[in-house]
Formats: sequence, C-alpha cells, structure tokens
Amino acid sequence: MSEIIKVAIDAMGGDDAPGVIIEGCMQALHMSQDVFIYLVGDEKIIGPMLERESYDKERLEVVNASEVITNNDHPVLAIKQKKDSSMVVALKLVREGKAQAFISAGSTGAILVGGQVIVGRDKGVLRPALAPLMPTLQGFSLLIDCGANVDARPEHLVQYARMGSIYYENTMKKASPTVAILNIGAEEEKGNALVRAAYPLLKECSDINFIGSIEARDIPYGKADIIVCEAFAGNIVLKMYEGTANALFSKIKGAFMANFKTKIAALMLKSQLKKTLKDYDSTDYGGAPMLGLKRLVVKAHGSCSAKEFRQAILQCLSFYRADVSGKIAAAIAAAREKESLQEEEQ
Amino acid sequence: MSEIIKVAIDAMGGDDAPGVIIEGCMQALHMSQDVFIYLVGDEKIIGPMLERESYDKERLEVVNASEVITNNDHPVLAIKQKKDSSMVVALKLVREGKAQAFISAGSTGAILVGGQVIVGRDKGVLRPALAPLMPTLQGFSLLIDCGANVDARPEHLVQYARMGSIYYENTMKKASPTVAILNIGAEEEKGNALVRAAYPLLKECSDINFIGSIEARDIPYGKADIIVCEAFAGNIVLKMYEGTANALFSKIKGAFMANFKTKIAALMLKSQLKKTLKDYDSTDYGGAPMLGLKRLVVKAHGSCSAKEFRQAILQCLSFYRADVSGKIAAAIAAAREKESLQEEEQ
Repeated sequence: MSEIIKVAIDAMGGDDAPGVIIEGCMQALHMSQDVFIYLVGDEKIIGPMLERESYDKERLEVVNASEVITNNDHPVLAIKQKKDSSMVVALKLVREGKAQAFISAGSTGAILVGGQVIVGRDKGVLRPALAPLMPTLQGFSLLIDCGANVDARPEHLVQYARMGSIYYENTMKKASPTVAILNIGAEEEKGNALVRAAYPLLKECSDINFIGSIEARDIPYGKADIIVCEAFAGNIVLKMYEGTANALFSKIKGAFMANFKTKIAALMLKSQLKKTLKDYDSTDYGGAPMLGLKRLVVKAHGSCSAKEFRQAILQCLSFYRADVSGKIAAAIAAAREKESLQEEEQ
Repeated sequence: MSEIIKVAIDAMGGDDAPGVIIEGCMQALHMSQDVFIYLVGDEKIIGPMLERESYDKERLEVVNASEVITNNDHPVLAIKQKKDSSMVVALKLVREGKAQAFISAGSTGAILVGGQVIVGRDKGVLRPALAPLMPTLQGFSLLIDCGANVDARPEHLVQYARMGSIYYENTMKKASPTVAILNIGAEEEKGNALVRAAYPLLKECSDINFIGSIEARDIPYGKADIIVCEAFAGNIVLKMYEGTANALFSKIKGAFMANFKTKIAALMLKSQLKKTLKDYDSTDYGGAPMLGLKRLVVKAHGSCSAKEFRQAILQCLSFYRADVSGKIAAAIAAAREKESLQEEEQ
C-alpha cells in the first residue's frame, strides 16, 4: 500500500453542499485506498447524512465547524471573522500539516484569500494563481491566472508560466509543454502595456517552452498547453467559453426539439453526440489548483457534480505524489538565484 | 428620391479583395438607389473586373490608388508612408467631404490609425472606439471597445457608454438601451482598478441606462444591449466567441459525419438547424463602426462575404440619415458642459 494522503474537505461550500460533496467523498474512498478525508462542516447536518452511507470509517473523520462562508460574504472579512467556518477550519488542518490538501466548492474569493493567509505562499512566490484546465479540440489547456488577483505585473506572469509548466508537466504527463501569452495579435509588439512588458521576459526564460502570443480565438483549438494571462482576462476567457458553449447548446437543442422529424433525428444522433462531446468534458479534471502555496489548495466548481468533486479529490493524490509544490518552490528558487547572479555580474 | 449618400470604399482590403468587395458594391447599388460609391484601388485590376458587371454607372466612380496596406504593415507607418494606398486615398475622400462614409475590410490597426489621423475625432471625444454588434440569444449586443486602443482610462469607458447608447438606439431602434460594464463579478466592488474606477462614474450618468456589471458568461445570453470594456478585454470576448463557436461546430459536425445513421439524421436536421442558427448570424450587420470620428468609418470583417460587405454599405445610409455622428458630438458636448458646471459649483 502506498502512503495515505489526507485531504481536508469543506463540506459546506458549493451550490449543492453538503449532499454532492459527501457523495463525491464516498466515491473517492471507494475508488482509492490511499485517501483519508477530514470532512469539515456542521456535524448536526453531516452526521445523519453519513449514517446512510457505507464506507471505510477508518478513512473519514468528521471535524465540526459551526459557520459557513457564503458567496455573499466579503472574502477578506469572512476569513478573518468566521473562525469556526468549515473553510477556515479545513484550511487550518492543512496549515498544521494534519492534511496535505484542501478542497472547497465554495466562494472563490474566500478560498484565494484563505489559501494565502492561512496556508501561505511558497517562498519566493509573488502571487499564487488559480489554474483551471480547459477542454480543447486537442486535449486540455491550463489557463493561469483565473483568480481574483487582478492587475498583475509582468514578473507575476513569468512566475505563472513557470508554475503552470511544472503543474502541466507533472499532472498531464507531457514533457516540455508549450507556453503562450494571451494577446490580441500574434506579433511581439502587440498587446497592452502588461503583455508588451511580459513578452520579452518570457522569451528569456530557459526553463519554459515559450511559443509567443496566442489569440483568444485559438484557445478552443488547443494551440498552447499553458496560457498565461492576468486574472481579469483569464476570467473572461473561462466565462466566455462556458457561456458561449451553453448558449449554443441551448440553441441547437431548440432545433432538435422543433418538430417530430427533428426529434427522431436527435434520437438517432444522441449516442454519437454524447461520445463526441465527452472529449470536451472537463469533469475528469475536477478542480482548479491554486499554484504557489505551501500545500495544495483546490477550488472545485460551485455547481460541480459528485463525480467532479471525486475527481478533484483523486487529483490531489497525483499532485502530492508528484511533489508539484516542492518542484514549484525549487524552480522559483532557481530562477531567483539566476536573477541575482545576473545582477551581480552587471 | 432621398439624398444620395457617397461611400468611399477600400477595394483592396480584406482576404478576398477586390473580388468580394466589388460583388458587395454591386449588390448595394442594386438594392438601394440612394448610394454612390467611390471604389478606390488599382484601376488596372478593378477596371477589367467592373467591365464584366452590369450596374448604374452614374453611381460608381473608380478612384485609382497604386498601393495597398496589408496586415503585415505597421499601422502607423503604413498610414504615414503609403500615401497612394487605397485606404489612405479613400479616407481622404471622406476628410475632404466628398464622401460621407468609409468602409474597409483591411487591416484593423491601419483603419483605426487612419480614422483618427485622416478623418479626425469629434470635438471632445477622447478616444474613438470600435464597436461591433454581436449576435446573442436575445438579438444583438454592442461591444465597445474592441479596437487597438488598449489600456483605456475610466473616462474613456464613460464616453464609450454614451457613444454606444446613441449608436444602438439609432441603428437598432430601441429606446433607452441597457448598458453594462464587463466585469468578473456582479458586485460594484469587484473588478480590476479600471472597472472599479469606471463603475461609479457610469452610475452617475443620467443620459445612459446603466444596469451594472455583466459577467462574460452572460454575454451570449444578451443580458445587456451595450457592453462597455477596455479594448484588450473586448478583443478577448469577441475572439473567444468566434473561436468557441467554430470549435464546437466542428466537433458537432464530426458527430454528424461519424456513420451512416448519423449522416441520415444530420440530413433530417439540416434545414431546421440552419433556420435556428440564422438568428445567430451576424452578416446582417456587416461592419463595425468606429464611433467618435467626424464622419463614419466602418471596419468590415477581413473574411467577410459579399453579402456582409453589402450590408456594411447599406448600414452607412441609416447611420448617416440618423445623424449618429452629430448626435454623439452633441451628447459629448452636453456631458462636458455639465461637468464644467459641476466643477464651477464646487
């Protein structure tokens, strides 16, 4: 048996918490013998729900927390004031080393604040970044940063590129993944002030496979493995992707349901369409990690399914085993060493 | 007969120029008796092509221009140095008042530079903005700015909101259209520095119907008539929309073509799908105007069809007749007057 990895889970975060969260935990416990779960939340609610489930009781412990942080709470104030919230209590388990990873489907803002304040940044990391994997026609691309840390500086983007490369290489098992910077044209002189300043810095990095700019229209085609961007832009990319796909599907569904003939045709297409669109399904990659922290903090989608939440848990195992946090810390340290040597030479 | 409106057309700009451009002009001349076209380009190329067409020769005049500005040219240098390019010659016809509008499917960057340098801004306009109409589930939304003027300031966004409202009201014939600012959350305190500074300014404007923030995922659903944003973000919205839709369609097409059964089903669905997706077709709104200039400058899509180019020409007529430029100038002047009165009061 491999080493048991302990995951602290915010049972109360997300649109369908705690039901979906508990179901995801049950699935994860069944699928892997190597996971231990701290299920953090109101035991008066969670307790009776767990009683109905059958699972390995040696590998799940309920940790009581009386409060809940909601999307309406101000992230900074919530982390500071709701000391007994499921999110804060779970994050503290990680800080104290009792758990190796944290997952929540709750408020993104609060997770970002809590990750930085409670778990803490890796040494040398200027800003942690939220890095979801997006399905593309080629597989998956990592979009970094999609967090709440807007108005990044060029040196932040360089760190995102490094952290994203290490994460992608280790979790997607692809050597030397390509890195592109999100831009409004292909040429180096294109872009806003941030992109024009970051581009030459990225070009100089010998430890990443930088391929230049990527335009938004090429993202769904998977033209780069890692897409580096400031968080405001990253958020737009992610949400346009989601919104456009959903709007188009509802449009197409309308055409399918228009009349008897189209309904028959839709039935004939159903299994093939499902098969084709399955490649486009992001549920296999459950959650978005917040890279650059001392330990793993994962944000699951607010409306995630039990399967997605389970995948987020299982993802923690490979992240931990591949020592992604350690490798990121080492790469950041090496880059800083190189920079200071160059400064001395000058 | 109504007043004849003269349009200066860059015959050489665009992926399929001059063929598609000439075809678009022919269609426009047939569909409206009120348009006169200056067709600007290399007469050795255009001349023989026109000879094959039948049209009202009283309403088209070829203006020779020996050079062409391409997408590879640097916009500022091209406008400055290629004095005899089809774009520069056509823009000068507008500046001199010989034509009331200009259209090109050529380099966006060069059109933006040429529009400002040759045609010139309306008095009081800080920055002109490129404002395409995007198809949504509700109709059309105007996205302003999608141009090359990145890194806007808050006061620019306020002017975009005013100019966009006037354009939308007059061309889409909807009174008091809704205005939202592109953001990464619904709350007023969300966003980057630019958005947080612009939000309260927009809220104060009594001459627009400001409804707050819009998240990118709500854009395809048409939750606002006018979406105000900085150009880098606007470009991402537009290109993610295009890229995601195209990638999804190619995926779905793959499912349709998978086997005999799916091919039959696809045939059965074809006409209905076409009908449904037609609402989603932006070709009826041919080109994106550059708002805030003394006269109308329109950017047509580089890969536009003859029909799209024709629509861009016909669009010029309603723009001119509704006096959109004049109304924008008046609104900007009124807003400035109000501001200076407020300053005096303080």
